[in-house]
Amino acid sequence: MFRNRMPRYEILSEDAMATLDGGWRRLVSEIGVEFGDERALELFRRAGQKVEESEEGAGIVRFDPDFVLEQVAKAPRSFDVQARNPANSVHIGDDAMAFGAVYGPPFVREGEVRRDATMDDFENFARLSQGFGVLDSAGGIVCEPEDTPLDSRHLDMTFALQTLTDKIYMGNVVSGVNAADTLAMTEILFGGRESIERTPATISLINCNSPLRWDERMLEAQFAYCEAGQAVVITPFLLMGAMSPVSIPAALAQQMAEALTGIALSQLIRPGCPVVFGSFLSNIDMQSGSPCFGTPESAVGLLCTGQIARHFGLPVRSGGGLTSSQTADAQAGYESLMTMLPTFLAGINWVMHSAGWLEGGLVASYEKFVLDCQVLEMLQHEFTPLEIDEASLAFDAHDEVCHGGHFLGAAHTMERFRTCFYRPFVNSSDNYDRWMRGGGKDAATRAGELARRKIDEYEPPPLDDAVREELAAYVTRRRRELGD
Amino acid sequence: MFRNRMPRYEILSEDAMATLDGGWRRLVSEIGVEFGDERALELFRRAGQKVEESEEGAGIVRFDPDFVLEQVAKAPRSFDVQARNPANSVHIGDDAMAFGAVYGPPFVREGEVRRDATMDDFENFARLSQGFGVLDSAGGIVCEPEDTPLDSRHLDMTFALQTLTDKIYMGNVVSGVNAADTLAMTEILFGGRESIERTPATISLINCNSPLRWDERMLEAQFAYCEAGQAVVITPFLLMGAMSPVSIPAALAQQMAEALTGIALSQLIRPGCPVVFGSFLSNIDMQSGSPCFGTPESAVGLLCTGQIARHFGLPVRSGGGLTSSQTADAQAGYESLMTMLPTFLAGINWVMHSAGWLEGGLVASYEKFVLDCQVLEMLQHEFTPLEIDEASLAFDAHDEVCHGGHFLGAAHTMERFRTCFYRPFVNSSDNYDRWMRGGGKDAATRAGELARRKIDEYEPPPLDDAVREELAAYVTRRRRELGD
Repeated sequence: MFRNRMPRYEILSEDAMATLDGGWRRLVSEIGVEFGDERALELFRRAGQKVEESEEGAGIVRFDPDFVLEQVAKAPRSFDVQARNPANSVHIGDDAMAFGAVYGPPFVREGEVRRDATMDDFENFARLSQGFGVLDSAGGIVCEPEDTPLDSRHLDMTFALQTLTDKIYMGNVVSGVNAADTLAMTEILFGGRESIERTPATISLINCNSPLRWDERMLEAQFAYCEAGQAVVITPFLLMGAMSPVSIPAALAQQMAEALTGIALSQLIRPGCPVVFGSFLSNIDMQSGSPCFGTPESAVGLLCTGQIARHFGLPVRSGGGLTSSQTADAQAGYESLMTMLPTFLAGINWVMHSAGWLEGGLVASYEKFVLDCQVLEMLQHEFTPLEIDEASLAFDAHDEVCHGGHFLGAAHTMERFRTCFYRPFVNSSDNYDRWMRGGGKDAATRAGELARRKIDEYEPPPLDDAVREELAAYVTRRRRELGD
Repeated sequence: MFRNRMPRYEILSEDAMATLDGGWRRLVSEIGVEFGDERALELFRRAGQKVEESEEGAGIVRFDPDFVLEQVAKAPRSFDVQARNPANSVHIGDDAMAFGAVYGPPFVREGEVRRDATMDDFENFARLSQGFGVLDSAGGIVCEPEDTPLDSRHLDMTFALQTLTDKIYMGNVVSGVNAADTLAMTEILFGGRESIERTPATISLINCNSPLRWDERMLEAQFAYCEAGQAVVITPFLLMGAMSPVSIPAALAQQMAEALTGIALSQLIRPGCPVVFGSFLSNIDMQSGSPCFGTPESAVGLLCTGQIARHFGLPVRSGGGLTSSQTADAQAGYESLMTMLPTFLAGINWVMHSAGWLEGGLVASYEKFVLDCQVLEMLQHEFTPLEIDEASLAFDAHDEVCHGGHFLGAAHTMERFRTCFYRPFVNSSDNYDRWMRGGGKDAATRAGELARRKIDEYEPPPLDDAVREELAAYVTRRRRELGD
C-alpha cells in the first residue's frame, strides 16, 4: 500500500490550534451533543457526564472536555484492517494512505446515459476496484443497487464485496441489524469472531447528523461494530451553510466536537477500539443551496483537518475525488484534484470517494472511476520522495552530450528509459495527427472504453468453495427472514 | 495583485540542496556553458573566466562557480514592472504572484475547430486577458498570428498588447532587432527611455537552448533588454529525456547551471538588472518522444525549483496550466491543476502559461483560457490565509441552531451569505434537472460561450490619442523598413 513519505503541508499556527481547541471545548460543554441511543446516554451518565433527556430515548450530553480527551487517548494511533488476501490488508494511520471507491450514489452514469444504479453496476464497480491496484478497497456502497429489495440489499452488497474482491471492505451501517449481518458474514469469511476481533476486518462509516447530533440508527451500527472491535470512521457531515456555520473555523471546531465525542463513545463501548477521525467538509452554494465540491473552502478545511487529527494522535479520513460536475469534463477533472491533491498534502489515512464520484456524489461514473484511478497513480508517484545523491546528478550523461545536443540516445538514458518516468494509462500526449487517427477521443471516452475492457477481462480472485457456499447460504436464509 | 501568504511547501533537505549545489558547480566548471555571442564571451573573458572558442563567434565558458554567485548576488531580490495603468503594475518576487496567459502557440482551438492562429485570435486573447482580473498580463505571444508577415509580426503583437490591454506585457525576443523595436515602442508608451530604465516596463523570456547552450539570437535580445534595465526571465528549457538527463536531480542541477550563468551574464551587462530564475521543466514520453505536461515529475521539479530560487534570493518563474491534452477535457482539467497547484505551493512569482494552454502548448484554446481563469480564482482564494479568532468560531450561531437543525436562516449566516464562500463563474453545481434544462452543457461548452460573451462585451482601456498615433506610425514605418 502507499506510504506518503513527503512532508505534510500544515497551515494552522499554534495560536490557531489553541483557538479551535477552545471552540470545541465550549461547544461540547455548553451546547452539548445529542445522542439518540439510551445505551450511549447510560455510558456517559455512568462516566459522570451531564445528561439531559431531550426526547424519548435521546438526550443531550454536556461534556467535560478533558474527559473526552481521556477517552480519545485510549484509541490506537494506527491499526491494521485485514483483507482475505493478506497481501491486500491495509494499515490505517501513520504515513499510510488507503483508498476506497465512491460511497453511496443512487445513480450511475455511463457515457451520455444517467440512470438508477443496479446490482449489475455494483458488481461492475467491485470488479473495477479489484482491477485497479491503486485502490485498496471498493469501499462499501459503491452504488445503491436500486433493483434489489431495500431490506436485504446489504446482504447482496456485502456478498459482492467479499467474493468479487479480495480487498478490505466497509460494513453496512443503515441499522444495527445490517451491521450484525455484516459481522456475521465477515466471521464466515475470516474464520470466526476471534479472528476479526484480533484484527478488524471491516471499517465502517458512522456519520453524524450534524450539527451536534448522533442519531439512533448510526449509533446502533456503531455499537455493533465497536463491540466487535471493528474500525469505525466517526464522521461529522458538514456542508457549511447548512449543517455548520458559514465560517471554516466554526466548521472545524464543530467537526472536532462531533468527532471527538463520537470517538469517546467508541472508547466507552470498547476501550482501544480502532477509530478514525472522520471529515466530510464542504460548503453549499448560498444562492441555490446546492452542495459544492472541490471548492477552495473545502480544500482549506481538508488541510486543517489532517493537522487537527494528528494533534489528537488519531488516523484521519477525508478527501477523495469530489466534484459537483454532472459529467466527467474539465470541471470534474480540476475539482476532483482540488480535493485529491490536498488529501496527499494533508496526509489523509483513509480516503473514501477516491474513484467514481460525480455530480455531488449522486452519481457513480464509469468514466470518472478510471480517470480518478489515473490521477491517484500520478499523485502516488508525485508524493514519493526524490532520491538526490551524486549518482542521480548523471554527470556522465552531461559529459557525453555536452552543449546543445540531446539525451535521447545517451547511455544514461538507454539504461533507464523504461522506468525513469511514470507512464499514464489513460492520459494522451499523442501529437494531433496521431490522436485524430485514433478517433480524436477525449479523456472520458478513452476512460469509458478502458472501464468496459477491464470489466470484460476481470477474473475473480480465488475463494474457497465451502466459504462461498456458506456465505451464499447465509444470504439466502437472512433474505427469507427479512421477508424479501 | 495576488500575494501568497500561505506557507511554502518545501521538499528539499539541506543535504539534497548541497548535493544539487555541487552538481551545478561541477557542470559550469568542468563541462562549461556555451555562449553564441562574442560580446558575452568578451565580458566573461575580461572577468577572468576561461573561454574556449567552439565555433565562429561562439565559445565555451568554464566558470568559477563563486564568480557566478558573485554576479547573481547583484540581482535584485524583487522588483516592479510598470503597466501603463499604474493600478496594473506588478511586483515580481517576495510573496507576490503574477500571472500571464499562454505564450507561443501556433494553433488555436475553439470548440471542435483547430486551425492556424490569426491576428484576430491574438487580439481576442489580448481582450480576454484584459477582461479577466485574475490575469496580470496577456504575456507576450499569446498565439502566433500566422496571417501576418513574419518579419514585422512583432510590431503588430506589441501594438495589440499595448493598446488592447493596460497591463504589463512581455518583450519580443526573436532577435536583437525585434527587441529594439519592442523597446522603442515601450519608450513611446511610457514617455521615454528614462522612465522605463527607472522601472522596467517589459519582462522578456530568454530561453536556453538546453543543454548548456545560450544561442546567438536569444543573447542578442538579452543584451538589448538588459542594457535598457528591462526584466529578463532566464529560462532553461528542459524536457527530461531530450534536453536533460532522465533524472529529476540531474535536471535541477542543469537548470541551476544554465539559469545562474545566464543571470551572471545579465549582471555583467548591467549590474542590478532585474532578472527572474526561470524554469520550464517537464519530461517526454520515452516511447513516443512526445512532450508530457502535468506529470508527477514536472510537479516535483516545480516544487524544488521554487525552493532553489529562494536559496539564491531570486524571483522565480515556473508553473502554469500545462497539459498534453488535445481538448479542454477532464485530462486538461487535472493535468493543468497538477501544475498550477504546485505553482502556488512553491510560491512561484511569475507564472507564464496561466491561461489558454492546450496540446503541449501548440494550441491556444478559448475554452481552456476561461477554465484556467476559473481555476486561478479558486486557487487565489484557497491560498489566502484563514483568520481564526474567537469571532470566527460563530458560537452564537451554534447557540441559535443547537442540535440537528440547519444554519440556512441563522443570523450569522444571513449577515454573511453573499460573501462567505468563493462563487465560481463557470463551474456548475446545478442539480441534474436544472442542468439539463440549461442544455446539459459541459464545462468546456459553458467556458466557450463565456469567452465569446467577454470578447463581445470588451471595452478597450483608455489611451491618449497622440500616443496611439505615434505607436501606429512607428509600426507603419518599421514595417516598411522591414520590407513587409
